[in-house]
Amino acid sequence: MATAEESLRQTLAEKQSAVDAQAAAVRSLKSAPGASPTEVESAVEALKRLKIEAGAVARKLQAAVASAGGGESSASREAFRVSCVNTLERRLFYIPSFKIYRGVAGLYDYGPPGCAVKANVLAYWRQHFVLEEGMLEVDCPCVTPEVVLKASGHVEKFTDLMVKDEKTGTCYRADHLLKDFCKDKLEKDLTLPSEKVAELKHVIAVLDDLSPDELGAKIKEYGITAPDTKNSLSDPYPFNLMFQTSIGPSGLLPGYMRPETAQGIFVNFKDLYYYNGNKLPFAAAQIGQAFRNEISPRQGLLRVREFTLAEIEHFVDPDDKAHPKFADVATSEIWMFPRDEQLSGKSAKKIVLGEAVSQGTVNNETLGYFIGRVYLFLTHLGIDKDRLRFRQHLPNEMAHYAADCWDAEIECSYGWIECVGIADRSAYDLKAHSEKSGVALVAHEKFTEPREVEELVITPSKKDLGIAFKNNQQMVSQALQAMKEAEALDMKAALESKGEVEFKVCTLDKTVAIKKNMVSINIVKKKEHQRVFTPSVIEPSFGIGRIIYCLFEHCFYTRPSKDGDEQLNVFRFPPIVAPIKCTVLPLIKSKEFDDVAKLISKLLRAAGISHIIDITGTSIGKRYARTDEIGVPFAITVDSTTAVTIRERDSKNQVRVSIDEVASVMKEVIDGQSSWADVMLKYPSHASTTADAE
Amino acid sequence: MATAEESLRQTLAEKQSAVDAQAAAVRSLKSAPGASPTEVESAVEALKRLKIEAGAVARKLQAAVASAGGGESSASREAFRVSCVNTLERRLFYIPSFKIYRGVAGLYDYGPPGCAVKANVLAYWRQHFVLEEGMLEVDCPCVTPEVVLKASGHVEKFTDLMVKDEKTGTCYRADHLLKDFCKDKLEKDLTLPSEKVAELKHVIAVLDDLSPDELGAKIKEYGITAPDTKNSLSDPYPFNLMFQTSIGPSGLLPGYMRPETAQGIFVNFKDLYYYNGNKLPFAAAQIGQAFRNEISPRQGLLRVREFTLAEIEHFVDPDDKAHPKFADVATSEIWMFPRDEQLSGKSAKKIVLGEAVSQGTVNNETLGYFIGRVYLFLTHLGIDKDRLRFRQHLPNEMAHYAADCWDAEIECSYGWIECVGIADRSAYDLKAHSEKSGVALVAHEKFTEPREVEELVITPSKKDLGIAFKNNQQMVSQALQAMKEAEALDMKAALESKGEVEFKVCTLDKTVAIKKNMVSINIVKKKEHQRVFTPSVIEPSFGIGRIIYCLFEHCFYTRPSKDGDEQLNVFRFPPIVAPIKCTVLPLIKSKEFDDVAKLISKLLRAAGISHIIDITGTSIGKRYARTDEIGVPFAITVDSTTAVTIRERDSKNQVRVSIDEVASVMKEVIDGQSSWADVMLKYPSHASTTADAE
Repeated sequence: MATAEESLRQTLAEKQSAVDAQAAAVRSLKSAPGASPTEVESAVEALKRLKIEAGAVARKLQAAVASAGGGESSASREAFRVSCVNTLERRLFYIPSFKIYRGVAGLYDYGPPGCAVKANVLAYWRQHFVLEEGMLEVDCPCVTPEVVLKASGHVEKFTDLMVKDEKTGTCYRADHLLKDFCKDKLEKDLTLPSEKVAELKHVIAVLDDLSPDELGAKIKEYGITAPDTKNSLSDPYPFNLMFQTSIGPSGLLPGYMRPETAQGIFVNFKDLYYYNGNKLPFAAAQIGQAFRNEISPRQGLLRVREFTLAEIEHFVDPDDKAHPKFADVATSEIWMFPRDEQLSGKSAKKIVLGEAVSQGTVNNETLGYFIGRVYLFLTHLGIDKDRLRFRQHLPNEMAHYAADCWDAEIECSYGWIECVGIADRSAYDLKAHSEKSGVALVAHEKFTEPREVEELVITPSKKDLGIAFKNNQQMVSQALQAMKEAEALDMKAALESKGEVEFKVCTLDKTVAIKKNMVSINIVKKKEHQRVFTPSVIEPSFGIGRIIYCLFEHCFYTRPSKDGDEQLNVFRFPPIVAPIKCTVLPLIKSKEFDDVAKLISKLLRAAGISHIIDITGTSIGKRYARTDEIGVPFAITVDSTTAVTIRERDSKNQVRVSIDEVASVMKEVIDGQSSWADVMLKYPSHASTTADAE
Repeated sequence: MATAEESLRQTLAEKQSAVDAQAAAVRSLKSAPGASPTEVESAVEALKRLKIEAGAVARKLQAAVASAGGGESSASREAFRVSCVNTLERRLFYIPSFKIYRGVAGLYDYGPPGCAVKANVLAYWRQHFVLEEGMLEVDCPCVTPEVVLKASGHVEKFTDLMVKDEKTGTCYRADHLLKDFCKDKLEKDLTLPSEKVAELKHVIAVLDDLSPDELGAKIKEYGITAPDTKNSLSDPYPFNLMFQTSIGPSGLLPGYMRPETAQGIFVNFKDLYYYNGNKLPFAAAQIGQAFRNEISPRQGLLRVREFTLAEIEHFVDPDDKAHPKFADVATSEIWMFPRDEQLSGKSAKKIVLGEAVSQGTVNNETLGYFIGRVYLFLTHLGIDKDRLRFRQHLPNEMAHYAADCWDAEIECSYGWIECVGIADRSAYDLKAHSEKSGVALVAHEKFTEPREVEELVITPSKKDLGIAFKNNQQMVSQALQAMKEAEALDMKAALESKGEVEFKVCTLDKTVAIKKNMVSINIVKKKEHQRVFTPSVIEPSFGIGRIIYCLFEHCFYTRPSKDGDEQLNVFRFPPIVAPIKCTVLPLIKSKEFDDVAKLISKLLRAAGISHIIDITGTSIGKRYARTDEIGVPFAITVDSTTAVTIRERDSKNQVRVSIDEVASVMKEVIDGQSSWADVMLKYPSHASTTADAE
C-alpha cells in the first residue's frame, strides 16, 4: 500500500511540475508581442488538460491516503458511524454519564438495551472461558493499596506524556497532537517532497518510543500549538493515569483505583495454586471495573476513564507450554498479521493456526490455543471474521520480559481497534510480587525419584581476603560468588595451574589479584527431590466496552422502508447477544388477542426468555421497525387464538406456529440448538402480507 | 424481654443484699464471745445457700443480657461462627484482599466458590426483579463528579463521627466506642443500679441522634479511652466516608467513588421516562460496586469498604401507589417488626402482608409488594424464613422526607443484620437533582379533557407599597405573596369590609397595616391540560455481600463422619446458589470409568451445568466430604459403564440413573422443574453402602 501511495505522490509531483511549466509557457506566449491567438488558445487548452490530469491524480492520492487503514473512504466511514451512533444514543444503548450536569468526558452509562447486551456478552464469556475451561474465577476490589501497584510497576510507569496550553492550562496528550499533525499533513498536503513524507511516516511509526525530550523537540520543530486556542504548549511531562485516593481515615495509606484486574489474581497465586491441588497449568479469571484517568478521552466508548475488563491469567510451567486441547482449534483459519509482514510492509494474511504454531510464528501452543478460543468467542458474538485480525506486537511495543504478544484487532469506523491482548508475560508479575512481598509465589514439581544434580559452590576465604583487601573484602567476596559457572571453572583451572589470577571487581572498578588460598571453587553433587520455579503466565485481557462498540458497528445496517421514503435501522445481533429475544405483538387491539399475548408472555417467562409485549395501537410495520432498531431477532404476532406468526428480523421470513409450541421453538432457536433455517423447514411459512415496513 | 431482664436485676440485687447481710451476721457471730459452733455452722450454711442462689440468678441474668438480640448464648454463636468462617476461608469462599502484603482492613476477595455463589445470586436477582418485572437496567460508572454528590447531600452529610487516639493517632468510630462501653458494662456489671441500667440502655437507643458535642460529653463522662492503648481520645468530629479522587489531568474537577448506585439512576430519570413511553410507574435497576471509606471496618464481610449493591428505583405517581400485582404477594405471612411493637418493647410478629397494607402498618401497596418480592427472593436463595424479619424504621432513623421505610434484617451470629432497605423516599432525590442541574425531572399526566381549575392570584401594588413602606416594600410584598389561600381570602374579606387590616411580616419581625389599595386578591379560573409532578420513588436496595454472608451462615452445618471421629462441614446451598452443581466421581481408578466420567462431563457441559470431575484416588467418602464442604448438591458416582449413582448432599439418599438420562435428570432438578423427592420416586433407590463419610 505504501508503494502505491508513493508512486502516486511521485506522479502527482511530475504532473504538478508539468502544469507549472505549461502555465509559464502560456504566460510567456501571452506576453510575447507576436503570438497568434490560435497558438495561445491551444497552449491554454493543454494547460487545462494537464490540470485535469493532475487533479485526477490528486484525488486518487487523497483516497489512497485516507483509506490507508481501511477499505472505505473516510467520509463514508464517518457517515456510517454517525448513523449508527445516533441510533445507539437515541435508543439508550449508551448515554454520556451525568448528562443533566453536562457530563464528564470519558464516562458513559449503559442504558437498558446496552446493559442487556453487556450482561449477555459477560455471561457468554463466563460460559466460554470460565466454565468450559474450568477456570478459577475471583472477584477482587477496585481500591488497591499503593504497595501492590508499586510492585507491578504502575506507580512508576503507568503514564502518558502530557503538554499544557501555556495560557489556558488545557491538557493534551503529546503523542496524539504529534500524530494528528503528521496525519493531517500527509492527508492534506499532497505535494510534500518524498523525504518529508518518509519522515512524517517514520515519526508516526516510532511515536511510542519517543522520550519526553524527543517528543518535545518534534512539537517545537513542527510548530505544533494547542488545537483549540493556537497558544504555545509546555514541554511534555509524564502524567500518571491512575485515579489516586486514600484508604482509611488516617490519610496515611495511599491507594489507587486499579488500572487492570490482573494484579488481584497475581497476589492470590499461592492460594489459588493450593486450591488447584498444587498443580499446573491452571487459569484464574476475573471480570470487573478498571480505571484510567485519560488525559483527553475521545472516540466515544473506545477510550474511556472507567471500563469493564475480563482477564485471564493462565499459569504454566515455562518449560512446557503445550496445551492438551490445542488440537480443537488447530484447524481454524484466521487473519493474522505477524511481525515480519508488518516490518516488510505486507498485509495481514489468513493462516491456519496449527501451522502458525508449528512454524514458530506463534511462540507456543498455549498462546495459540487462546488465539483460537478468542477467535471463536468474538465471531460467535457477531464480530465479522473478515474484519478481525490478530496482530503480533513489534519488538518495540512489547515489554522486555514478554515472550510473545498478539492483539485481537477489530476493524470499525475508527480503524483497527485493539480489543483483546493475548500476551505471554513470562514470570515477570509473580517475580515482582514475590520480591516486594517476601512471599514466594512459586510452583513445585516433585520428582518421582530424587535426581542427582551438580552444583557450583564458591567459598571465599574471609580471613585471607580480609588480609589482602581490608575494607574492600566484602566487595571482592560478593564478586567472586556472583561468577557464572564457566568463569568460575576457568578461575579454578588458572588458580591450580598458576596459583594467581587477575579478577575484575566491577563494584570497585578495579582489577585485583586473587590467590589460590582466597577462594575454593568446587562442583558438588546433590540430590534434588523437586524443582521449584516461578510459573509463566499467559494473559488474555478483554476490553469488554471496546468489543461491544465494535459489535454494535458490525451488526448495524439500514434498509429502505416498504414505501422507500425512509431508511430503517437494524442491528443484526445474534440471539445470544440480543438485549431482548422476542417481541409479542397482538395484530390488532382486541381483548382476545391481548389474552393470548399474555399467555405467551407467561410461557416465555417460564422458559427464561427475555421479551416485551407491544400493545400500542401503532401499525404492525412500525412496531417491527421499532424492535429491529434494538436488534430483537424474533417477533411473535398474535393474529389468531390458536396459532401465531413468527418473523425473523433480517430475512423477514415468517412461519406459523401453534401457541403451545411457541415457547419451545423460541427456546431452541435462541439457545442455538436449532437454526432459523431448521424452523423454516419444520413449520409452514407465512407470506408476508402488509405487515413489514409500512 | 427488657422486663424479664429488669426483674432479674432486681432479684439479683435483693439476693446480693441478703448475702451481704448474712455475711455480716456470720462475721459478728464468729467474733462474738459465746457463740455455739452449731450456731456458727448453720449461719455459714445459710450464707452458702444464699450465695448459690445469687449465683444462679446472676447466670440467668448474664444469659438474658447476652441473648437480648438472639436465641443462643453468645459463646455458642461465637463457636458456630468460628467453625463456619474457618471453612469459608479455608475453601477460598473469600480471602482478605492483598493478603501477601498483610491486607487492608475492610477489603475482601471472593475466591472461586464465593465468586460463583455471588454470580448465581446476581443472576437470580436479575431474573427475579429485572426480567420478571420488566425493569430498565442501567450501568453507570463508579467515578462520580462532586456536583452530583453535592446535590444528593453526600458531600455534606455522608459522615460518621470519629475520635482519634491522642498519642498514636489511631482512628475510631465514636458511636461504636460508646456503644461497646455501654454493652460491656451491662453485660459484665450485674449489680448496676436500675437507674444506671436504664441510662446506658437509653444511650444505646439514641446513639444515632447524638450530636458531636453530646457524644463527646458522654465519652468524657464515662472515661472512655482508646481500646488498644488506653490513651485519651480527641473530641468527636465528622469524617466523610467517600473515597475522594480527582477526574482528568487538570486536578480541578474533584470526584468521589460512588457510595451507592442510586444517583446514577436519578440523573437519568428524564431519558428513562422517555424510554418507557413517558409512562409511570416504571422501575430502573442497577447492579454495581459502591465504596465507603469506613473508619474502622469489622465483622468480616458485613462492614467493608467496597461492596456490590443491587438497587431498584421504582418511580410512581405520589397520588397513586397501588400496585397491579400486589395480590400475588398479599397472602404471604411474614415476620414483621412494626414501629409500634418496637416502641412498646414487644417482639416481631407474623403478619399477613395484605393485612399489613390494608391496616396501614405498611404505608402503601407498592412498598408492600416489594416487601413480598424481597421475602420471596431471600427465602428462595436459602435464607431461613424464621430468621428473616422486616423491621420498620423508627421516626428518628428515617430521613425527614421519607414516607415509610422497612429493612429486611437477617439473623446471623452477629445479631440481626440489615441486608435490604426498602424505602419510600418520596420526591426528594429527583427534586434535589432538578434544583441543582436546572433540568426538570418531572412526569406529566395528560388529561383526556382540559380541566378547569381555580387559582389564587395575589398582586401587590408596587407603587402604593413603596409609598407606605419605602425600603421595606419588597419584604412586605413577598410576605403578601407567600400567604396561603385561607389567609389570603380572610384578608380579602377584611379589606373589603374594613378597608385596612393588620399583617405580620416575619422577615421584618413587625406587624404592618395593609390598606385596600395595596394589594388585590382574586380567585381566577384557568384551563389545565395536564398535571406536571415529581414522581415518588420507592427504593429497594440490596447489600449483596451481606446477603451472601448470612446465606453462608444459614446454609452451614456440621455432621459427624461415619466413624464419628470428626465433624464434617456442609453447606446446604439450594442448587440455584451452589457454586458447582454436581461432581462426577469414578468409583475406582480405571480407564473405563474415567471414559464414562468424561462422557458425562461432556453431556453436562452441553446442558450448561457447572460441574467438576474428581479423579483423585482418594476414598469416595473423602471425596463426598470435600464437595459437601463447598455445598455441591449432587454427586454422580460412576460405578458401571451403563448407569451411575446420584447422591443428594443433605439426605445422602441415592438413586440409580442410566448414563443417557443423567444430564436431563440433573438439569430438571437444578432448574427447579422437579424436586429431589420427584427424582427419588421416579428412579430406583440405591442403598448407601460403604460410600458415605468413611
